[in-house]
Amino acid sequence: MTIADLAKDFTDLLKQGNSEAAASKYNADDVVSYEAMEGPMAVSKGKEALKQKSVWWQANHEVHSATVEGPFVNNNQFALRFKYDITPKETGKRVTMDEVGVYDVKDGKIVAERFYY
Amino acid sequence: MTIADLAKDFTDLLKQGNSEAAASKYNADDVVSYEAMEGPMAVSKGKEALKQKSVWWQANHEVHSATVEGPFVNNNQFALRFKYDITPKETGKRVTMDEVGVYDVKDGKIVAERFYY
Repeated sequence: MTIADLAKDFTDLLKQGNSEAAASKYNADDVVSYEAMEGPMAVSKGKEALKQKSVWWQANHEVHSATVEGPFVNNNQFALRFKYDITPKETGKRVTMDEVGVYDVKDGKIVAERFYY
Repeated sequence: MTIADLAKDFTDLLKQGNSEAAASKYNADDVVSYEAMEGPMAVSKGKEALKQKSVWWQANHEVHSATVEGPFVNNNQFALRFKYDITPKETGKRVTMDEVGVYDVKDGKIVAERFYY
């Protein structure tokens, strides 16, 4: 499977709102996620940790709409552009999130993801 | 200068169409540029090589419009989203280019740039 094919299938799953299937199918067991923030959420290590992070995020945000653009590929990486219209339950304030994700692929699996905002 | 300040100033210069000033001000002498293609343009090394690449690109493309979105920051990197409406002089066919650039910053200078499409 080429990086372009993997990136397209992963992205198609996200566009269908099926992020759990995308992560389950393509995240490596030792995948690492890097957020652009300080604190305990800055780095998450391992497929199970990322799954729990995703469950937490979905439980704590009301998503009004989400768009995913891409994939944009270079060598063993691909990038996606995300726009979310959400209300964090903690604040109750509706906000837009506009970010870029970059994914590192090795041996047919995603080994790292970095989010820029 | 924080990475956020550097990224904002660099991006503002690009948004003003002043990419030469942006590169001159922020590219490290040993900056490396990675394109998502095979061949001689895949990797360019050094501030002077990148300048020549930029001169070549501008001489060989008619730019009808260009938009830059960002910056999106994470740790020592920032990402930009580019959309170009251009006509390569070689083909004469008007096309849109939609891509993401990711920049690595070290000691206040850009040491690498990667373009995803």
